[in-house]
Amino acid sequence: MKEENKFENLKPVTVNSLDEILGKPFKVLDDGFIRVIDYMGSDKSIVQAARVSYGEGTKKVTQDRGLIRYLMRHHHSTPFEMCEIKLHIRVPMDTWRQWIRHRTANVNEYSTRYSIAINNAQKTNPDEWRLQSGMNKQGSEGFLDAGLGNQLTEEESNLHNEIWNIYNKRIEKGIAREQARKDLPLSTYTEAYWKMDLHNLLHFLRLRMDSHAQLEIRKYATIIGEEIVKRWVPLTWEAFEDYRMNSQNFSALEMELLKLIGNNKLSEAVDKAEEYGWLRINKEGKRIKSLERIEFEEKLKKLDFKIPW
Amino acid sequence: MKEENKFENLKPVTVNSLDEILGKPFKVLDDGFIRVIDYMGSDKSIVQAARVSYGEGTKKVTQDRGLIRYLMRHHHSTPFEMCEIKLHIRVPMDTWRQWIRHRTANVNEYSTRYSIAINNAQKTNPDEWRLQSGMNKQGSEGFLDAGLGNQLTEEESNLHNEIWNIYNKRIEKGIAREQARKDLPLSTYTEAYWKMDLHNLLHFLRLRMDSHAQLEIRKYATIIGEEIVKRWVPLTWEAFEDYRMNSQNFSALEMELLKLIGNNKLSEAVDKAEEYGWLRINKEGKRIKSLERIEFEEKLKKLDFKIPW
Amino acid sequence: MKEENKFENLKPVTVNSLDEILGKPFKVLDDGFIRVIDYMGSDKSIVQAARVSYGEGTKKVTQDRGLIRYLMRHHHSTPFEMCEIKLHIRVPMDTWRQWIRHRTANVNEYSTRYSIAINNAQKTNPDEWRLQSGMNKQGSEGFLDAGLGNQLTEEESNLHNEIWNIYNKRIEKGIAREQARKDLPLSTYTEAYWKMDLHNLLHFLRLRMDSHAQLEIRKYATIIGEEIVKRWVPLTWEAFEDYRMNSQNFSALEMELLKLIGNNKLSEAVDKAEEYGWLRINKEGKRIKSLERIEFEEKLKKLDFKIPW
Amino acid sequence: MKEENKFENLKPVTVNSLDEILGKPFKVLDDGFIRVIDYMGSDKSIVQAARVSYGEGTKKVTQDRGLIRYLMRHHHSTPFEMCEIKLHIRVPMDTWRQWIRHRTANVNEYSTRYSIAINNAQKTNPDEWRLQSGMNKQGSEGFLDAGLGNQLTEEESNLHNEIWNIYNKRIEKGIAREQARKDLPLSTYTEAYWKMDLHNLLHFLRLRMDSHAQLEIRKYATIIGEEIVKRWVPLTWEAFEDYRMNSQNFSALEMELLKLIGNNKLSEAVDKAEEYGWLRINKEGKRIKSLERIEFEEKLKKLDFKIPW
Repeated sequence: MKEENKFENLKPVTVNSLDEILGKPFKVLDDGFIRVIDYMGSDKSIVQAARVSYGEGTKKVTQDRGLIRYLMRHHHSTPFEMCEIKLHIRVPMDTWRQWIRHRTANVNEYSTRYSIAINNAQKTNPDEWRLQSGMNKQGSEGFLDAGLGNQLTEEESNLHNEIWNIYNKRIEKGIAREQARKDLPLSTYTEAYWKMDLHNLLHFLRLRMDSHAQLEIRKYATIIGEEIVKRWVPLTWEAFEDYRMNSQNFSALEMELLKLIGNNKLSEAVDKAEEYGWLRINKEGKRIKSLERIEFEEKLKKLDFKIPW
Repeated sequence: MKEENKFENLKPVTVNSLDEILGKPFKVLDDGFIRVIDYMGSDKSIVQAARVSYGEGTKKVTQDRGLIRYLMRHHHSTPFEMCEIKLHIRVPMDTWRQWIRHRTANVNEYSTRYSIAINNAQKTNPDEWRLQSGMNKQGSEGFLDAGLGNQLTEEESNLHNEIWNIYNKRIEKGIAREQARKDLPLSTYTEAYWKMDLHNLLHFLRLRMDSHAQLEIRKYATIIGEEIVKRWVPLTWEAFEDYRMNSQNFSALEMELLKLIGNNKLSEAVDKAEEYGWLRINKEGKRIKSLERIEFEEKLKKLDFKIPW
Repeated sequence: MKEENKFENLKPVTVNSLDEILGKPFKVLDDGFIRVIDYMGSDKSIVQAARVSYGEGTKKVTQDRGLIRYLMRHHHSTPFEMCEIKLHIRVPMDTWRQWIRHRTANVNEYSTRYSIAINNAQKTNPDEWRLQSGMNKQGSEGFLDAGLGNQLTEEESNLHNEIWNIYNKRIEKGIAREQARKDLPLSTYTEAYWKMDLHNLLHFLRLRMDSHAQLEIRKYATIIGEEIVKRWVPLTWEAFEDYRMNSQNFSALEMELLKLIGNNKLSEAVDKAEEYGWLRINKEGKRIKSLERIEFEEKLKKLDFKIPW
Repeated sequence: MKEENKFENLKPVTVNSLDEILGKPFKVLDDGFIRVIDYMGSDKSIVQAARVSYGEGTKKVTQDRGLIRYLMRHHHSTPFEMCEIKLHIRVPMDTWRQWIRHRTANVNEYSTRYSIAINNAQKTNPDEWRLQSGMNKQGSEGFLDAGLGNQLTEEESNLHNEIWNIYNKRIEKGIAREQARKDLPLSTYTEAYWKMDLHNLLHFLRLRMDSHAQLEIRKYATIIGEEIVKRWVPLTWEAFEDYRMNSQNFSALEMELLKLIGNNKLSEAVDKAEEYGWLRINKEGKRIKSLERIEFEEKLKKLDFKIPW
């Protein structure tokens, strides 16, 4: 630990590929954006931090990519916390409501107590109205016919104008900004500085780039991931995709089934699934919906394995 | 630490005065509420935790009240973290936006992705429209004449109806709940389970019971403080009022001035304030506004001390 | 959300099977223990919190066990945060060093600044000296012969006595406790109150019950898991075992291989592994150690799948 | 918020006065050090973040110093969280035990499971042995005579050698590093990368630069404050000294007394103190020790105010 040369000529770590986009706004939705304001650290900083833990012991053994993959695979999260990034975002309040639930961030948001609200709300185009998913109570699926969407869009546009008129009238009458804003729509844009360490950012991305996340926040998350994090820490990004985004988890029950199926013991697999209560039948003789079974079947499909029941 | 009798007959700690109001909704605003769902710990638990730190050493010395006051005075915050409370609240989303900024809480909020939004938004009565403060860019001051307020209230009521119609129409057309909600007003009610430890709750109350906090959240905070925390941990509440809510902080600069003023060295005090840049004059010969000076003057008034300039 | 009957007859949640062991010390190591001091919540509280999120929507659909399993499977962690537990532990400082790294806990530790240090250090029996693992740089493997261990144990015992004499001598000479303690061994026992929510506790258990965790902390974690959490929230514990402790994660790369192997395309699997760089050969013609490959092979063994290379 | 020129030519923020000492180790104790590895942000970043909150509203009004002082005075902590610093420290484990209690840090510590322990423990010179404070159960006061200290120092030196021999012997016998280390003294040095945002760092400094903090950690904290933070964010440092380090808090009770004393109503002040229970007399007619009274008397002394009883 005491090699004196480690102590010389230290400079703040910079990453050229990220410096190139510093301050550049990536557009999201109709009037939102994300841009990087500042950052600290790089793939190298992660390796450096890990090596403090490991001391001399592992110096030669592992190379950077292998070490980063090892850390990611085994959930050694602290070295990833050594990197930090600060973004400036413009986002509808409705999306921000989900965003702000990630508690490990540092945040300064535009205040509509201090200042007049941002005069814009997110508009939905006629072909962007999504239909309620039947399967997934919290999701959407497909789009409303654009012809029908037309009407909703026009209605929305009129509503926004009306609300904005009411807001302005209140302000003109001297109503306090903190109260005048109370009927602005959730779609009103806000802005914030948002700062987070890389470990927690990856956790955010894992949840918000997921296909179950709401489309709006998914668009923001995807840009943070693919336009920003990928440029910033490419080795970490690769490991994140392999071990988090595109990995698959099998429960204890699923591992038992996988073993039977892969070894061609299909009837034993059916017995096991029976035992788990996955194959129950209702009075009409139809199989009762079991989310555990359905999700397992999806994994089997990804593996091109036969569903034994 | 090894007195065996400490290990016997342990029961979950309960506080009778809090048990009496368990589940009871305290009304806030026109349709909001707060109620206690569950809690853990009491004044006794704080003392118990502090005594683990102090070991045998301080056993006889301090009594509960004195010890709790000592902990509060010296910002020994960890024993207060040993108490936990869980509330069920119903609150306008606009207020919730401020509330959720307190990151140390555990939260489960009603989801308008899963379920139809709560069909109610906070209404403002004709005599409740507040005027923008001139002094304080983020505050309000006084009320609009109720006659004028009448019109704003009616306008708001119509707006709420219209928005609700639009929301319902979208739902009927099959639009996903997650998107249909996007133009609901910020005043729409939401509900949440909100759990926090006592130390962080007191921090929340200090900020949100403060006269600079927005009236709506102040009403919630005041009920939490005076109806709930006071019943739960009365000794802690008393110490909190003395050392946090009603205490006064004097900066290094202010301490120097206080010393001069209290010892009747008024002209020296003026020189010192001059030196601080608090008494600068603009071209018209008027004293330039200095927030540091103004806030100090307010403290002097509280002490009935003479303002020397 | 407004069924009035939900608001009545509320009592603090209690769990009989946990109440039975409240305060009872579970022994760990030669002189350590863990005991439950207090707790808040139960399996029911998790369900209740989740249902606030879901509103009326899912009320009938899911039963408690299914809902808890769903939450666990999909990393919906906030309902688990609604439960809280407070433990009193006695643990060697060396183990405590690892324990305290979990930052989400509330902690009050016995202070050796205030009080005389606890006069006991953890002793190692002759048959308990573990050998350094060759494979795993941070692990142990097997035991030293107890005959040889004898000498180490005696040496340790003498050392502890000597250190304790030096500590006492310093105290007698009036040296401050905060400084006198500086040469106590890391094996000295300390005590603490340690409070955590269930979500973070499960994360702690996942890391510390793992076979890679150091034996000492693993013993503590195992007792917390199997003697305490299992009694407290049995449905959650079952789900945790299925989806966390005994589940298996397959990376994107591993999923591709699994698909080939399970569909009996073994030579394609070898090509793929080649492409991943898992099968490289050194100058002596020996396969270079690849942790990614080795860990995958272990997973294949669990599935009784053939290793194709 | 949408001035397009804000979006151009952004570079990572650097601070020349801090860059000059980047990587330079500041020595602490006999073999410890602190050095800055990297950082993010500056006084300017704090102002920038605050102005996002305030929007256009306050643009011209406040200048940087005034704004930073305002933020500090009113505990608007989020803008200070926008700055981040990463240190490399070498510190005795006993000091690290206190340090690690600050939970908001990101940490990678040297692992004595992976690697041989750092072969050095903090030595105490003959004139550095501190005496137990009588008043303050957790403090020290004055020094042991260096003649007597000589013996303690020699004893310590021998003890360190002996422990190190035992550690080496265990390692030679093949004992796992994770177990061999168990009897190392608390004074053994460790190293860590330690990263924190500025708001939480200032909180750390307030507690650890305080005269009640243990001397060892106080030395580290003082260097972080006066050698590092002062160079990094000079305006913030000045505000921190005025409003935190050198400010004085007066409780509600103390404010009442101050008002009476400053207005020369001394007998009323005595009555009030009587009422508070500060002037109670024991059977021998001696005034019972009251920490609240004593601490207030100290504040009065700082103000050169007369103690009225």
